[in-house]
Amino acid sequence: MSLHGTYDDNNLFAKILRREIPAVMVYGDEHVLAFMDIFPQSKGHILVVPQGTKARNFIDFPPEKVGPLMERVQMLAKATVKALSPDGVTITQFNGAPAGQTIFHLHWHIIPRYESVRLAGHGHQNKADIPALQELAKQIAAAL
Amino acid sequence: MSLHGTYDDNNLFAKILRREIPAVMVYGDEHVLAFMDIFPQSKGHILVVPQGTKARNFIDFPPEKVGPLMERVQMLAKATVKALSPDGVTITQFNGAPAGQTIFHLHWHIIPRYESVRLAGHGHQNKADIPALQELAKQIAAAL
Repeated sequence: MSLHGTYDDNNLFAKILRREIPAVMVYGDEHVLAFMDIFPQSKGHILVVPQGTKARNFIDFPPEKVGPLMERVQMLAKATVKALSPDGVTITQFNGAPAGQTIFHLHWHIIPRYESVRLAGHGHQNKADIPALQELAKQIAAAL
Repeated sequence: MSLHGTYDDNNLFAKILRREIPAVMVYGDEHVLAFMDIFPQSKGHILVVPQGTKARNFIDFPPEKVGPLMERVQMLAKATVKALSPDGVTITQFNGAPAGQTIFHLHWHIIPRYESVRLAGHGHQNKADIPALQELAKQIAAAL
């Protein structure tokens, strides 16, 4: 799908936001839910997803909501650093399929980086072990 | 350099912010300067750099400045889409050398994506043609 288009109410993250399907939660408030990426590119890869919006991407997201969303992205990135002591962190966001977007509800990736460890590709299909994700989520949440 | 460390007042972006070395400017106000990446990963790759901070990365950036910075990142991403009609846009930010950071003053990348065109790697050393960058900057600025 392109950069422009119609929001699909049944995209994966819409279902997670409605609690129709489960996710390994890290944090939630009125602005965002944050949960573990089930196809992590590295240990501790989380997603931050805005609530109460039908924005497909950052381009069509209401400007007045940018601050609250990104303050939470920063807060969660800090907690990830505190909890997991990675050597680096990539914060990234894809708009449109040609940019790598696969789920068309705006989301930010927080991807810890570890010295000499290559990232798994975005969009791989190796599902993480759920108890391991739950343990990571607990550690990150405790560092908030 | 790692995620933690001391800010170097002579990093490249500090010099650009002080106007000691030139850059191909797109936008500037009290919060940010935005200019063309001279080693672009794609046509229209720009950098958004906060002013008045010694933050090396997003982790150590003052939370109260996150909103104003990211509103400008969004504004510039929208202008890039309007000006250049890419098929997608990647918005990304690297914290620490293991995440790909090479200049240790916080900066956000806005990278237009074009169908079937691969990105040049981050950190390549093929300097762009300056008049071509100036033309792109003019187009993006006009779309603000």
